[in-house]
Amino acid sequence: MSKGLLFVLSGPSGVGKGTVCSALRTRMPELIYSVSATTRQPRAGEVDGVNYFFKSHEQFQEMILNDRLLEHAEYVGNFYGTPRDFVEDTLNAGNDIFLEIEVQGALKVMEKFPEGVFIFLTPPSFEELEQRLHGRGTETVDTIMNRMTVAADELELMKHYDYSVVNDEIDLACMRIQSIIVAEHCKITK
Amino acid sequence: MSKGLLFVLSGPSGVGKGTVCSALRTRMPELIYSVSATTRQPRAGEVDGVNYFFKSHEQFQEMILNDRLLEHAEYVGNFYGTPRDFVEDTLNAGNDIFLEIEVQGALKVMEKFPEGVFIFLTPPSFEELEQRLHGRGTETVDTIMNRMTVAADELELMKHYDYSVVNDEIDLACMRIQSIIVAEHCKITK
Repeated sequence: MSKGLLFVLSGPSGVGKGTVCSALRTRMPELIYSVSATTRQPRAGEVDGVNYFFKSHEQFQEMILNDRLLEHAEYVGNFYGTPRDFVEDTLNAGNDIFLEIEVQGALKVMEKFPEGVFIFLTPPSFEELEQRLHGRGTETVDTIMNRMTVAADELELMKHYDYSVVNDEIDLACMRIQSIIVAEHCKITK
Repeated sequence: MSKGLLFVLSGPSGVGKGTVCSALRTRMPELIYSVSATTRQPRAGEVDGVNYFFKSHEQFQEMILNDRLLEHAEYVGNFYGTPRDFVEDTLNAGNDIFLEIEVQGALKVMEKFPEGVFIFLTPPSFEELEQRLHGRGTETVDTIMNRMTVAADELELMKHYDYSVVNDEIDLACMRIQSIIVAEHCKITK
C-alpha cells in the first residue's frame, strides 16, 4: 500500500481559501481534512476530534515542546495548531490529507514537512483582491490598506510553493486542485 | 504570454499508447500533436505537414547533421524523426505540443529536450501486457516472448520519466494525462 500525500492550500487573506475548500469538500467527499488543535472552549455542537482537538493550555504547551505540532499560532488569546500525529497517522494509513492554512503557517509546515505538496491560491489580479477585501463591507479603509500590504508581502512568498492556482472561478480552481492531486499520485519519485 | 509545454507519452509496445492518444484527441481537440518527418513515400490522401513532413533521404540527413531532429530511427528502410522546429515553433507560439513515441525515442528526446514532461504509460500488470500482445493474434509465440523481454527492459526505463500512468481503463488513463497537463501549468518554476 502506498503512503498518502499531504496537500497544503494557502494564499493571502481574502483570496477565497475557505470558499474553494468548501467546494472541494463537496466534489471530493473522500478527502480527509486536517483537524486543528486549539485551547479555545468548544462551542455548542462542536465535537472533539471532528471540529477541533480541544486541549488545555498545559496540553498545548506539551505538544509544542514534544514537537507534536507542524505549526501553531496565537489568535485573540487562544492557541491553534496542526497536530503532527493526525497528519502522519492519516498518511500512514494510505490516505491523503488536506490542510487549509494561512501563508505564515504554511511556511512553518514546509520546514517540518517538506515532502508536502504546497499550493498557493492567487487572486486573478491584485485589483480583484482589493475588490474582495472591500466587498466584505465591514472594514475601515485603514484596515483594508493594511490587509493589502500584508497580501502584497504574502504574494512574494508564492515562490516557495510547488503550485499556484488562480481563483478566477471556484469550479476552475477546484478542477486545478483536483488535477494537482491526481498528477502528484502519478509522479515518479526520483 | 507564457510558453507552451512539451508532453511526451511513451511506454512499452502493446500498452495501448495509440488507443489512449486517439481518445485524448477526442477529449482535447485543441491539443497540438507533433508531426514526424519521414523519408517514406506519401500514401494516398496523406498531406505533407499534416500526416508527416515528407523528406528526401538527402533532406533527412541534412536535418540530422544540423541537429533539427529531437530523435530519429530507421524502420524497414525508411527514416522517421521528430522535427525540432515544429516543436519549438508550437511552444514559442504559447501552445502545448503532444508527442507519442516509443521508449527508445523518448529517451533521446529527454537528452535534447529535458524541459519536456515525460509520461510513461504502464500496463495494469505484466500478465495483462502478455494478454494484450497475445490478443493481437497475428504473432508467433517466439515473437511474443521476444516482445515480452523488450517490454520488461522498457519497464526498467520508467524511472527516467516524470510520471507513470496506468492504462487500466482508457477513460481513467486520459483523465490522469489531462490532470498532468493542468497540474504542470500550475507548477511554480524554481
